[in-house]
Amino acid sequence: MKKIKKLLVANRGEIALRVMRSAKEMGISTVAIFSEADRNALHVRFADEAVCVGGPKSSESYLRGDVILDVCRQLQVDAIHPGYGFLSENAGFARQVQEAGIIFIGPSPEAIELMGSKLAAKAAVARYNIPMVPGTEEAITDVEAAKEIATQVGFPILIKASAGGGGKGMRVVERVEDFEEQMQLAVSEATSAFGDGAVFIEKYIGSPRHIEIQVLGDTHGNIVHLFERECSIQRRHQKVVEEAPSAVLTPTLRDEMGRCAVNVAKACNYVGAGTVEFLLDENMQFYFLEMNTRLQVEHPVTEQITGLDLVKEQIQIAEGNALNFSQEQLKINGHALELRVYAEDPANNFLPDIGKLQTYKRPQGLGVRVDDGFEQGMEIPIYYDPMIAKLVTFGKDRQEAIAKMLRAIDEYEITGIATTLPFGKFVLEHEAFISGNFDTKFIERYFTPESLQVVSDTDTDEIAAVLAALLLTQARPPAVTLETATTSIASNWRKNRLK
Amino acid sequence: MKKIKKLLVANRGEIALRVMRSAKEMGISTVAIFSEADRNALHVRFADEAVCVGGPKSSESYLRGDVILDVCRQLQVDAIHPGYGFLSENAGFARQVQEAGIIFIGPSPEAIELMGSKLAAKAAVARYNIPMVPGTEEAITDVEAAKEIATQVGFPILIKASAGGGGKGMRVVERVEDFEEQMQLAVSEATSAFGDGAVFIEKYIGSPRHIEIQVLGDTHGNIVHLFERECSIQRRHQKVVEEAPSAVLTPTLRDEMGRCAVNVAKACNYVGAGTVEFLLDENMQFYFLEMNTRLQVEHPVTEQITGLDLVKEQIQIAEGNALNFSQEQLKINGHALELRVYAEDPANNFLPDIGKLQTYKRPQGLGVRVDDGFEQGMEIPIYYDPMIAKLVTFGKDRQEAIAKMLRAIDEYEITGIATTLPFGKFVLEHEAFISGNFDTKFIERYFTPESLQVVSDTDTDEIAAVLAALLLTQARPPAVTLETATTSIASNWRKNRLK
Repeated sequence: MKKIKKLLVANRGEIALRVMRSAKEMGISTVAIFSEADRNALHVRFADEAVCVGGPKSSESYLRGDVILDVCRQLQVDAIHPGYGFLSENAGFARQVQEAGIIFIGPSPEAIELMGSKLAAKAAVARYNIPMVPGTEEAITDVEAAKEIATQVGFPILIKASAGGGGKGMRVVERVEDFEEQMQLAVSEATSAFGDGAVFIEKYIGSPRHIEIQVLGDTHGNIVHLFERECSIQRRHQKVVEEAPSAVLTPTLRDEMGRCAVNVAKACNYVGAGTVEFLLDENMQFYFLEMNTRLQVEHPVTEQITGLDLVKEQIQIAEGNALNFSQEQLKINGHALELRVYAEDPANNFLPDIGKLQTYKRPQGLGVRVDDGFEQGMEIPIYYDPMIAKLVTFGKDRQEAIAKMLRAIDEYEITGIATTLPFGKFVLEHEAFISGNFDTKFIERYFTPESLQVVSDTDTDEIAAVLAALLLTQARPPAVTLETATTSIASNWRKNRLK
Repeated sequence: MKKIKKLLVANRGEIALRVMRSAKEMGISTVAIFSEADRNALHVRFADEAVCVGGPKSSESYLRGDVILDVCRQLQVDAIHPGYGFLSENAGFARQVQEAGIIFIGPSPEAIELMGSKLAAKAAVARYNIPMVPGTEEAITDVEAAKEIATQVGFPILIKASAGGGGKGMRVVERVEDFEEQMQLAVSEATSAFGDGAVFIEKYIGSPRHIEIQVLGDTHGNIVHLFERECSIQRRHQKVVEEAPSAVLTPTLRDEMGRCAVNVAKACNYVGAGTVEFLLDENMQFYFLEMNTRLQVEHPVTEQITGLDLVKEQIQIAEGNALNFSQEQLKINGHALELRVYAEDPANNFLPDIGKLQTYKRPQGLGVRVDDGFEQGMEIPIYYDPMIAKLVTFGKDRQEAIAKMLRAIDEYEITGIATTLPFGKFVLEHEAFISGNFDTKFIERYFTPESLQVVSDTDTDEIAAVLAALLLTQARPPAVTLETATTSIASNWRKNRLK
C-alpha cells in the first residue's frame, strides 16, 4: 500500500482538469504536462507544477512516453494518470511506467494487451459464457463453408473483411440466395483494398443500441459494476449524447448485463475503472463488443447517478485500498445526460470548425455540470480532438434531466465557432429520443442539416411574437419604458442568434 | 388547479436567476423586473421579458408592490415568485396579489402574518407542545415577580427589552444575587432607549447551534419536512456557512425536530416551502425560534441532499398539485455545504467592499454548484445585499464536501473586490468546524483578522518551496524549459495573490 503524494496527469483539456480537481481534493500534488500549443491551457494553470514536453503534434508531446517518464523521475512523481486517448491504452507505456517504479493508474499491462485484441479478448472471456454476436470464430475464404455458417447463424448476416476497417469489404446479406455473389464481391473488394481476402461472417444486428457497463476492480479481487450508460446517439461511430441509466433496461436485464461485465473484468484480473461495451438488439438480446481499459469520456453520467467520484476510486484502488462498498450497496439515484459539445458544424456534416471562442459563457444552476478546458477568448487548437466541453445534467428522473439539458443548451453562449449544441437540442427535442425508442442509426434515420433550420424558424417566430405583443400594447404602465421593451427583444434576439 | 404559464419573479440577483431556471425547465415563460441599477443584470438577460420598475433604491423598485402588480396585469402574468427578502414576507402584498387574481407563490397572507409576530406564532403553536426557550409569557416590569420567574427558569437567564433590538437593554445574569441590580439596569436602559421599560425574562442559552428544518406543505393538507440545515456559522447574526445534514444530529433527534417543524407548519395551515428555526443547546435540547415563510437563501444544500428542486416544488404546490412523495420516501443522500460569498472584507470586520469584479472565474467540476447573478466586469451595486454568490459543494460524506469546498475556494478567482472566500477557507480548515464541535459563537471564539494572515504565510512558504526545488534541479530533461518552470511559479503566485 503506497500513498500517492504527487500525480502527473499525462493528458490535456477537460480530462486533465477533471483528474486534477479530484487529486487536489485528496490532498495530492499535481503535475501537468503540455505541448507548445497548450501553453496557456487551463490544465497548465490549475496544476501545482507544469512542464512543457514538446511540440504541438501529439506525437511530439502527449505521446512521448519517454519524455513523460523523464519528467516523472525529475519531479519525483508517484503516479501517472493517463486520462483517455493518448497513452491510456498503450500496454508498452504502462509497462515502462511500472518498471520505473511509478504507479500507472489503470489495469495491468497484460489486461490492456488482452483487451486490446478482439480475438484474444473473446477467447479469454469464453469460459464465462459471455454472449457474443454469433458468427465465424476466425477469418475464412471458402465460400461453401462460409455459406454453411451463415445459414446456421441465420440471415441477415454481415460479411466483413478480416484486415478491414472503415466499412471497406463490408456487406449485409439479407437472403441465402444472395450469399455467394455477395461473398465473392466482399472477398475481391477486401483483396484489392487490403491485399487480404479473408472475411468474418457474423449475425447482422440492424437496429443495435450501444450499452456499456462501468466496472471497478480493486487489487484484492473485488469487482463491482456501476450500472449502464446508453451511448447510442453517435455520429461517425463517435458518441455525442450519453445517459445513465438507459431508458429501456429492465432491472433484470441490468443485473444480467452487470454480471456479464463483472465476468469480463474477472477474465483479465481487471484492476481499476473499466468499461464493458455491449450491443443490444431489438429483442433485448445483448452481445459483448469489447472492453475499454481506461476512464471513458462519458464517465460523469455514472458519477451523477451513483454519487461516486470515479477518479478518486481509481486513485484509491491504485494505492492498494479495497473498494469500500459492495455491489448490494450501490443504488441508482436519479438520471443523468451528457452532451459532448464539439467544435463541429452539424449543419455541415459535423466538420470540425476551429477558431477562437469569442463568447464563452457556461450554463449554471442546480443539476448542471460543465467539464471543459477552455475559457472565453481561447483558441481551439487544430492538433487535438475538437471537443470543447461535456455538458452534463441530472435530475430526479429522465424527464427532468432532459428539461435541464434543453435549458442548459439555451443558456450556453458560444460564439466564434460552430458547435454541436444545436444538434443536441434537436436530439433532445426529438420524439424518438424522448420516448427512448432509438438506436445507433438515429442520425441517418432522422437528422438532416435542415433539421436545424426548423429550430431557427421557431426562434424567428418567437421574436416576431414578442414584437407583435409590444406593438399591440396600448396603455403601458409608466415604468415599462420602450427602452425596456427593447432590452427584452434584444436579449431574446441575442440568445437566438447564438443558437 | 391552474397551470402557471407566465411567472414574474419579484426579485433580483442570484435568486431571480435560480427561480427562472426552474421555471424555464418547466416550460413556464418568465418575466424579470429590474431597477435602474440592474439594467445589465444577468436576471434581466435571462428572462423572456424584462421590465424596469423604478429607481435604484429598493423602495423605488423592488419594494413597489403597486408597480409590480401593474406589470403583472399588463403582461398577463399568472403568478409571482417573491424570492427571499423584499416583498417575500409582506402579508399585505401577498393579499393584494391574491385579490388581483394572481397566484402568490408562498403561503397564505394569514400564515405570513401569524408567523411574522413572535408572540402570535408562539401562541398558535402552543397546542402542539413545541419546546420553547423557558421564560416569561409576556413583558414584565415588576422586579419581584421577574425574580421569581428567573429562579423557576434557572440561571443563567437573559433579560431583554420588549421593545428592543440590536442588543440594547439586554443583560445576561449568571447568579440570583445579581438579579435585582441587573434587572433595574436593563429596565432603565430600555426606558431611555425605547421609551418602554418592559422586559422579557428567558433562559440564557450560552452555546446555541442554529438548526432549521425545511418543510413543504401542499393545498391538500400534506406537510413533510426535508430534514435540517445547520446554520451556526454567522457574522452579525447573519449566516455565512451552512450545511445539510448537521454534523451532530442523531436520527432520533432529527425525527423529533422534523415532527415539531411539521406541527408548527400545521398550526398555520402552511402551504408551500417554509423553514422552522430552532436553537439547539449543549445538552441537545432544542427550542422553537421562528418560522420563515419563504424560500431561504441556503435552500440549495437541502436540494443537494434530497434530490428535489425546491422551486419546482413551490410552483407545483401553487398550481394545486399534491406532493408526489411521502415523508417515508424522503432520504438523505450525501452531504452539502454552502459558503455565502459576500463582497465584504473579513480582515476589516466584514465591512462591505463594493466595486467592480475585475476577474470573476467560477470553480467547476463534480459536486460544485455556483448560484450567482454576476459575471466578470460587472459592478456590485451599492443598493442591495452585498452577496456575490452562493458556493455550494456536495459529496458522499461531510469530509468529501469539505475537501470539495476547499478546492472550490482555491479555484474561485475574484479580483477587484474583497470577499468572504478567505474567511470560508479559515472556517473549513478549522479544527472546531471539521470536528463538528461549534456553535453560533464560532467567530468571536476563534476568528481575528490575523487568522487570515496565517493562510497567506502558508502560500508564501509554498512559493518558496517551489523556487527552492527548481534551483536544486541540476539535470533537467531537455523538454523542461526554464520558461516552463516560470509558468508554474507564476501560476502558483497568481493563485495565491487572489486568495
